Amino acid sequence: MHVMILGAAGMIGRKLVEKIAREPEALGGAISRLTLVDAFQPPVPEPLQSVSTGLTIDLAEAGIAEKLIGTRPDLIFHLAAIVSGEAEADFDKGYAVNLDGTRALFDAIRRQGLKSAYVPRVIFASSIAVFGTPFPEVIPDEFFTTPLTSYGTQKAIVELLLADYSRRGIFDGIGIRLPTICVRPGMPNKAASGFFSNILREPLAGRQAVLPVNDGVRHWFASPRSAVGFFVHAATLDTAKVGPRRNLTMPGLSALVSEEIEALRRVAGDRAVALIRREPDPVIERIVAGWPTQFDAGRASSLGFKAETSFDEILRVHIEDELGGRIA
Amino acid sequence: MHVMILGAAGMIGRKLVEKIAREPEALGGAISRLTLVDAFQPPVPEPLQSVSTGLTIDLAEAGIAEKLIGTRPDLIFHLAAIVSGEAEADFDKGYAVNLDGTRALFDAIRRQGLKSAYVPRVIFASSIAVFGTPFPEVIPDEFFTTPLTSYGTQKAIVELLLADYSRRGIFDGIGIRLPTICVRPGMPNKAASGFFSNILREPLAGRQAVLPVNDGVRHWFASPRSAVGFFVHAATLDTAKVGPRRNLTMPGLSALVSEEIEALRRVAGDRAVALIRREPDPVIERIVAGWPTQFDAGRASSLGFKAETSFDEILRVHIEDELGGRIA
Repeated sequence: MHVMILGAAGMIGRKLVEKIAREPEALGGAISRLTLVDAFQPPVPEPLQSVSTGLTIDLAEAGIAEKLIGTRPDLIFHLAAIVSGEAEADFDKGYAVNLDGTRALFDAIRRQGLKSAYVPRVIFASSIAVFGTPFPEVIPDEFFTTPLTSYGTQKAIVELLLADYSRRGIFDGIGIRLPTICVRPGMPNKAASGFFSNILREPLAGRQAVLPVNDGVRHWFASPRSAVGFFVHAATLDTAKVGPRRNLTMPGLSALVSEEIEALRRVAGDRAVALIRREPDPVIERIVAGWPTQFDAGRASSLGFKAETSFDEILRVHIEDELGGRIA
Repeated sequence: MHVMILGAAGMIGRKLVEKIAREPEALGGAISRLTLVDAFQPPVPEPLQSVSTGLTIDLAEAGIAEKLIGTRPDLIFHLAAIVSGEAEADFDKGYAVNLDGTRALFDAIRRQGLKSAYVPRVIFASSIAVFGTPFPEVIPDEFFTTPLTSYGTQKAIVELLLADYSRRGIFDGIGIRLPTICVRPGMPNKAASGFFSNILREPLAGRQAVLPVNDGVRHWFASPRSAVGFFVHAATLDTAKVGPRRNLTMPGLSALVSEEIEALRRVAGDRAVALIRREPDPVIERIVAGWPTQFDAGRASSLGFKAETSFDEILRVHIEDELGGRIA
């Protein structure tokens, strides 16, 4: 099986590659070829080096999709994107990469299939940014997508294309609407959602973190390990069971900031909690107020997608996967 | 005010132009210039000839959008499309016209606005084809769009673009999701939905018509007059009241085929009803079974959009507007 990962140098891309390195049969069969694509140099773990090719390219470049698909990968993970803030600030770049780059990829698959039979599985990283406020308390699977960012618009458009191309048998697609990933590893970043991870990751490492919203803010989470699990599960899923509605809101944990903090207290004590500095930021509070807080992800759950059910579990995953099982 | 109508030679386009000819202030102000655009020669009624320009062009042609928008119309009705059956049969043509042609138009508006302030009102003809079965009995305003045709996909994508471009202040857009238009004037056509109109229009003219489904089929209707009314109302609507959710399912009449027939009987008697020939067609029955039957169009209604509430009314509109008030 030839597997291609677009966005292989990103957080989830790297973890997906590591998962395949640890469990070579995770995607349902032996991997004869692994193509790792990103705008940045994608790391290749030792056990996969003999079958892997790393490509540092810009997906928006003319002819790139044709070249990539010319190698006829059987399974394509499309995780590459201009992120929300940048797609909002740079209209042309966001549409060029997130929409046109992806459509070029889909059309290259179509043209490849016109030459000779070719129907790869395509798994696309979508986002709960396809939804825009106001919301019901629990957002059902059949809720409409009215994004309030260009990023969310681009994701929602690709979802529609993915469903239409799948319906026409051009490829066999699944769209994965990711919850907010928590605990994000790495350095604190300036994303408005960063604090959800910062207030856990930093205190666990003995460092201070800023909480810019009040404890009563509710949001929708899954761990990086669950996110990788979603993509792996989508790779082997019987898509006949999915039918024509190919875009799935992933299961997640709906939790309050206060529940994050209490989970941190149980795991690392009052000393860790004391490292959270409350500095209310009206701008971030306003942004966060427009985000979804809870989904009924019944369809994805019934198809076997799984996420954490408590913040204790999310913290345990972080400690196991990022901290070698130990807290500072 | 400079008004541009794309798709001006189509059924609704022509009726919209006739409405403006009859009521010069219908769009909320005097029309200093009217540009009528279509792939076919658009007819220009006498009272509008001094201010009108008719253009016979292909919207998918490179540079056309730039040229049209270079004239800086204040109000743009975009009714032009490759129809459902053709967009399904010809993948490239459907996407080229319905998606790329429309996006080129939207982007031309953006580029025009970057030269100097320009924020036209854009009213886009969408369709209930953005919805795909299975449905709840009554489809709510917040139901998701999972189209089962490429045409519906293209309409749903343009809806997303229209909302994002409006949110960004590039233009001031409204998407109008039309019900099935009934009674369609003209000759019986081969559209799967044609019989809904044929079984009324033909008997009223003393001709036979074929009914390929059973009497218990329910569907969602509005008259051509209501459709024109939707576009006229959208032209003068206070969009501040609409907010960021710019695509509106129009009100309509949910009715059974048997209700159509009983309305025909009340208006034109048993002799007219006897002209309906029942010839069940399993292919058409299957297609129609996938169509929506009823919407709760509460949002559009609360914004002042209006449609018929009985088939008697729909028939009366047809007799007044198409038959000069008299039945054969």
